[in-house]
Amino acid sequence: MRQPVALAHACRLVNHGPTVLVCSAHGGRRNVMAAAWSMPVEFTPPRVAVVIDKSTYSRELITASGAFALCIPCRDQAGLTARVGHTSGREIAAPDDKFVRFGIEHFAGPVLGLPLLAGCVGWLECRWLSEPRSEQLYDTFFGEVVSAQADDAVFAQGRWSMREDNAALHTIHHLGGGQFGVIGEVVQGQIAADGANG
Amino acid sequence: MRQPVALAHACRLVNHGPTVLVCSAHGGRRNVMAAAWSMPVEFTPPRVAVVIDKSTYSRELITASGAFALCIPCRDQAGLTARVGHTSGREIAAPDDKFVRFGIEHFAGPVLGLPLLAGCVGWLECRWLSEPRSEQLYDTFFGEVVSAQADDAVFAQGRWSMREDNAALHTIHHLGGGQFGVIGEVVQGQIAADGANG
Repeated sequence: MRQPVALAHACRLVNHGPTVLVCSAHGGRRNVMAAAWSMPVEFTPPRVAVVIDKSTYSRELITASGAFALCIPCRDQAGLTARVGHTSGREIAAPDDKFVRFGIEHFAGPVLGLPLLAGCVGWLECRWLSEPRSEQLYDTFFGEVVSAQADDAVFAQGRWSMREDNAALHTIHHLGGGQFGVIGEVVQGQIAADGANG
Repeated sequence: MRQPVALAHACRLVNHGPTVLVCSAHGGRRNVMAAAWSMPVEFTPPRVAVVIDKSTYSRELITASGAFALCIPCRDQAGLTARVGHTSGREIAAPDDKFVRFGIEHFAGPVLGLPLLAGCVGWLECRWLSEPRSEQLYDTFFGEVVSAQADDAVFAQGRWSMREDNAALHTIHHLGGGQFGVIGEVVQGQIAADGANG
């Protein structure tokens, strides 16, 4: 079941490099694209970076609205993620869009009202932090997370809990060409002591 | 066996969000740190971003030398990755360093001569692209990949090939607290058609 995640734990949702679905909306238009290239940049306040190519329809909507969302798809959504990633929202004649074309169930984000995909396992709404130079040179967009939610069947008490009995909900990681690696086993590194990274 | 990877394929090594080990060296000093937060930002020329906290010894060495390397550890190195990530190079009295302390086998990168970890499954040497604002505000460092190599037992012909028979070489993805998700199954998303992302 979808549950709120404390903002202090929000970046753990994307700490391990899952492929995400980027949602955006402006002036009655909306879009969703796949992005393999995202990462957290700060835990507190929770901030993320995501690469949004200049050619994308999503980039238009994000810069016009000042917001985007990252939805984290699971194993059961690998097909949808590939389809969404291989069609541009610009190619679909209004009033249709990718949500209509692909029959995507969605709900409104709690803070920004962005369209979020049902069936994902994590959701982050972000306010865009405009950085013209990074956007121009590296297509890198920064955002501050203002709402976080996760499916408590696989993320509970601020932690991912990927187990054999919830394998359909494990995150997917794009290897290229529509192939995704799925998180299988979870291993514990032996930590000598707590301390600074570096 | 370690083999060169064409620069056009270099970013595929980190496309799926593995945790990496960042190597740096300057003036006879050297260091290695763990970083869960990295991503490609461009395929051609191959460029990456990685988050390097202001407190780290690595940041000193990278900004002094103008270079860093990303090594991609595998399942068999989860313990080493956690240990390296929980000790600062600054805490170890010269002439010792983390390579000595943890008995890390290494070899020299082919272009920049950076110390690269043996036993990893991918290696990227990068020239630092100085971006003071991103570094200051988001701890985000950009770099251009100038050499790429991979273990051909798990990455061949420009593609990851993670299978049951090479499970020890699969990449690891930090979930937090020293726990790593390991890529298990690989699934093929059904792609409707080739086309633009977005």
